[in-house]
Amino acid sequence: MDLSKRSSGRLLNGILYPRDIRNMNNDALAALAEDLRATIIGTVSRTGGHLASSLGAVELTLAVHKVFDTPRDKIIWDVGHQAYAHKLITGRADRFFTLRQKGGISGFPKREESPYDVFNVGHSSTSISAASGILEARDLKKEAFKVVAIIGDGSMTAGLAFEGLNWSGDRKKDLIIILNDNEMSISPNVGALSCYLNSVMTGQTVKRIRKDIKNFLKTIPSIGEQVLEFSKRAEESLKALIVPGALFEDLGFTYVGPLDGHRLDHLIRNLENVRHMEGPVLVHVITRKGKGYEFAEAEPLRFHGIGPFYPETGGPSSAGGAQAPASYTQVFGRTLVRLARDNPRIVAITAAMCEGTGLNEFAGQFPERFFDVGIAEQHGVTFAAGLATEGMIPVVAIYSSFLQRAYDQILHDVCLQNLPVVFALDRSGFVGEDGPTHHGLFDLSFLRPIPNMIVMAPKDENELQSMLFSAMGYGRPVAIRYPRGSGIGVSPDAEPTLLEIGKGELLADGTDVAILAIGSTVYPALAASEKLAKEGISAAVVNARFVKPLDRQLLLDLSRSFKHILTVEENAVMGGFGSAVLECFEENGIRDLRIKRLGVRDEFAQQATQAELRDLYGIDEQGIVAAVLAMMDQKKEREPDPPA
Amino acid sequence: MDLSKRSSGRLLNGILYPRDIRNMNNDALAALAEDLRATIIGTVSRTGGHLASSLGAVELTLAVHKVFDTPRDKIIWDVGHQAYAHKLITGRADRFFTLRQKGGISGFPKREESPYDVFNVGHSSTSISAASGILEARDLKKEAFKVVAIIGDGSMTAGLAFEGLNWSGDRKKDLIIILNDNEMSISPNVGALSCYLNSVMTGQTVKRIRKDIKNFLKTIPSIGEQVLEFSKRAEESLKALIVPGALFEDLGFTYVGPLDGHRLDHLIRNLENVRHMEGPVLVHVITRKGKGYEFAEAEPLRFHGIGPFYPETGGPSSAGGAQAPASYTQVFGRTLVRLARDNPRIVAITAAMCEGTGLNEFAGQFPERFFDVGIAEQHGVTFAAGLATEGMIPVVAIYSSFLQRAYDQILHDVCLQNLPVVFALDRSGFVGEDGPTHHGLFDLSFLRPIPNMIVMAPKDENELQSMLFSAMGYGRPVAIRYPRGSGIGVSPDAEPTLLEIGKGELLADGTDVAILAIGSTVYPALAASEKLAKEGISAAVVNARFVKPLDRQLLLDLSRSFKHILTVEENAVMGGFGSAVLECFEENGIRDLRIKRLGVRDEFAQQATQAELRDLYGIDEQGIVAAVLAMMDQKKEREPDPPA
Repeated sequence: MDLSKRSSGRLLNGILYPRDIRNMNNDALAALAEDLRATIIGTVSRTGGHLASSLGAVELTLAVHKVFDTPRDKIIWDVGHQAYAHKLITGRADRFFTLRQKGGISGFPKREESPYDVFNVGHSSTSISAASGILEARDLKKEAFKVVAIIGDGSMTAGLAFEGLNWSGDRKKDLIIILNDNEMSISPNVGALSCYLNSVMTGQTVKRIRKDIKNFLKTIPSIGEQVLEFSKRAEESLKALIVPGALFEDLGFTYVGPLDGHRLDHLIRNLENVRHMEGPVLVHVITRKGKGYEFAEAEPLRFHGIGPFYPETGGPSSAGGAQAPASYTQVFGRTLVRLARDNPRIVAITAAMCEGTGLNEFAGQFPERFFDVGIAEQHGVTFAAGLATEGMIPVVAIYSSFLQRAYDQILHDVCLQNLPVVFALDRSGFVGEDGPTHHGLFDLSFLRPIPNMIVMAPKDENELQSMLFSAMGYGRPVAIRYPRGSGIGVSPDAEPTLLEIGKGELLADGTDVAILAIGSTVYPALAASEKLAKEGISAAVVNARFVKPLDRQLLLDLSRSFKHILTVEENAVMGGFGSAVLECFEENGIRDLRIKRLGVRDEFAQQATQAELRDLYGIDEQGIVAAVLAMMDQKKEREPDPPA
Repeated sequence: MDLSKRSSGRLLNGILYPRDIRNMNNDALAALAEDLRATIIGTVSRTGGHLASSLGAVELTLAVHKVFDTPRDKIIWDVGHQAYAHKLITGRADRFFTLRQKGGISGFPKREESPYDVFNVGHSSTSISAASGILEARDLKKEAFKVVAIIGDGSMTAGLAFEGLNWSGDRKKDLIIILNDNEMSISPNVGALSCYLNSVMTGQTVKRIRKDIKNFLKTIPSIGEQVLEFSKRAEESLKALIVPGALFEDLGFTYVGPLDGHRLDHLIRNLENVRHMEGPVLVHVITRKGKGYEFAEAEPLRFHGIGPFYPETGGPSSAGGAQAPASYTQVFGRTLVRLARDNPRIVAITAAMCEGTGLNEFAGQFPERFFDVGIAEQHGVTFAAGLATEGMIPVVAIYSSFLQRAYDQILHDVCLQNLPVVFALDRSGFVGEDGPTHHGLFDLSFLRPIPNMIVMAPKDENELQSMLFSAMGYGRPVAIRYPRGSGIGVSPDAEPTLLEIGKGELLADGTDVAILAIGSTVYPALAASEKLAKEGISAAVVNARFVKPLDRQLLLDLSRSFKHILTVEENAVMGGFGSAVLECFEENGIRDLRIKRLGVRDEFAQQATQAELRDLYGIDEQGIVAAVLAMMDQKKEREPDPPA
């Protein structure tokens, strides 16, 4: 593939807007599609990002912006990781190189960025509901724009999408849903709807039968009165019953498709028709994930969300000289496999994130004990609760921010019944470039108040292993939260350690201040302690391990030895670990302490690298040092400066 | 209706178990059904409860327990408010009179109560997912019981149910879903699926066509080779395509039905067949809500969840002598109607709780601005976000505990975009007899950490009016939480007051202790203050109004005047209002305060009246007095006892 030739950028040199698209003929659009692909590949190869989905939606993007009068007409992208071409042709080509970087343009549609971005996304399956709301507002305001939701087949698995479909099909307003069907969400799809869509796509039999029936019915008049009567009724009914999209028709939609999502002329002609149709319409478009980039077509999963890579080979370019430590994800996956070998009651559940949560090996070794429920976090959690009632120990591995989808199921189905479900919350804390929709900054705050729940966070890989091992024996709901990316570099012990519920550990003794850290902030706290020692400040460091139940005895002991206590967490500072510490001191009548809590202040953290964000919010080594120094200021003021 | 005759209880005198049912013939079962109805009506007329749904499911309950080998076979009731007959025939007839009372049997299936209660419920739409989990566990354990989920048509609207359906249809295990279709959930149903079900029920046309086609195909061989070929293919395909339950067949289920849910022989015969079928089966049963009790049949909505009533007339028996004050629900509803008259941007959204949330009048007066989305909280919230992007001010009225279903939508779709959606959280705090699944005890804790969110709670009806009025102008996400039931008896002012964001009010001055109260605890705090005055303790009372943002200035002022501070809230004590106060003092370096937080300790509160629960958790007047006295103990110890 000659990328240099393809990324000529001849059409992207001038900043493009949809009005420019509308003047182009199909040949020009096809050339533009090539240029868009080259730009997307070139940029994502440097920045990382959601490549495969965006490549698959290039022609669809062009067709939609050509046919619909954007931004007057509203296009709502579901999830938004397919919207790079949309960004490039809506005035953001010149800034596209800043994709997913600090201060740069978002990897997802974002209202703050452009009037063409109608609804902020990141999590899946919101588009139909959002579009329905926009449609009602349109009618109340007596305006007359079109509303189009573009949703992938994977996103259709989620209950939210079904709720939206069920609503809008009945509401009968002219909502246009474009189902961007690439037979794959993040992992290969699961579910009956997905099977159904596949049968529609390959539904040649159905098509043929429909044709047969039509032809046959034409011959009927010669047969007799009774049959003629039947024929008339059948003609009406069969139309609704024997079409590829019968399921959608049953739900109130006019079904159009399936359309080839890479044939611009085909897409444009059909969308022109759809634009003038009344009532809810579902347009079924078949696309290929990674389309036009051979490596992404061959490995759509690897190229779904990918780090920097060499565009010529598709190989990763970020793994530099030294070997990076194993990720927490990998350690989780390996540990679970090991534990599952000895314990047949352990089962694993993921929601379309088999690879992302590190469950690949588990799935391979214990296929009958592995359940990928697709993008259906609610079902995943209640399903786990069902398994637990029958004596299984389900481990539910879902990213922290996606687990928000299953809050009620955690509370109502797992914790109320005190069932031993283990939640493995990958991507807790800052996730980096995916930004505010994906940061896992609230789990400590929303899980902690739920009765029966145990909440832990490991300081390193070895502790993750021990926590997972220990959780299996607690016989209660447990959440273990750990960060995205590489661990500390600590090799897990040969045998995991059983951790007593609610016991933290004192890692470094001190006399001036106690730093209480949890999870990803423990090592930075240790480093800060060493640095503070050089400044003459003796800082003890505690690894809390448990956010719930807290190590009450340890806290009370500390309160007797220290007047200065600093808590540090990679979580919202409201309601998190530090608040739990405050609560503990209040409950035990401890006063007179100077306490400071470090965490993420009350705002949505934006996109940037994890290191940049930890620095920005002052929860890295440097931030901890600064906070301790600030606490000690009064004390220092009373002491003479050391000689220079 | 001669209830005395009907409630002879001749079959309920002995404690019944399903094994007794299995020996009965259909006549005996029919008589038992009558007795069950009479017992249910009699008990619920005294205790209150979910009458209409339970009456509708009597024959279905008997048929299921006759055909399936419970408790070995697992019956999972969805929501559970149809399970009174189930309770009566599974060994709990002698305790049924304690229904929904403190220490009595639960209004919902509960594992702690009986081995026949397989999965705890209360919230809707969990049964398919739970049953799927149980089924997988069965197979992993190589056991051989049957798994049956019984779900209402209203519950099918929720995304969670769809996720379960989508999963189990594809999974192809022999899950049996009984769709208990009464064309009505709590409010009349909405959604395309509901329309679809109605068309199935009345689908005589479809049935006739199917019959016609079958008959017709028999005549075909005489027509010729080409048609014979067609016929063969058509026979196979039409079976799947032209059945009443085509939608379910599309999703992988064998559809059986519709069955008359009140014909025992019919139900039993069909379930016997279904019991031996392989793969996922959906049995469509048509029932009548309130069946067998004329008043409930006539007014199924009023008899859905009802307080004590006179069985002879159906009229309420609890409204005793004095007129009870208007409920918060009513005040909310009236205020919203009034505000909406002046502001066409206000729209209202409820999730199958039009009456329960007090939106009836709004729905009547502004039908085009009222949206009942059915049991679909997720959709309701994201739909509201869509409306807000177009300049509307959506008011989303959902019970506190049901709003847990939409946690991610609140965070990701509303708050991340800082959209002006107003959440009206009815039934916050203790709900009473519905128990742990329905208490709204976590909203302060789970909403507070979300950036951009404003969280308020009114002390009385008048303040609710002002809060709702004020929220419309804040231009940000706002949550207003208020309790179930009657207000204080304070008539709302003629004009609502604009409340400044984050400003509380000092209601009573004092010198010894400051009581910081929020919402339902403000008046009890005032009463406690009066009582304490008689004991010589001068307690100031603050109505915080805002849990977020807190009135920082007021708190700092208090910290200068008081060394004793008590916070009181009807919410989990973890992460709630009191924790916010602790955080505020920490952030402002305030120490040396003796602080005590009252709230619901870290456990799931059980069923009892609201008053009993407030007493139990020490957040009523008496509890506040006791807590202040305990705080003051040290002080008192130093003072001489007053003369006796």
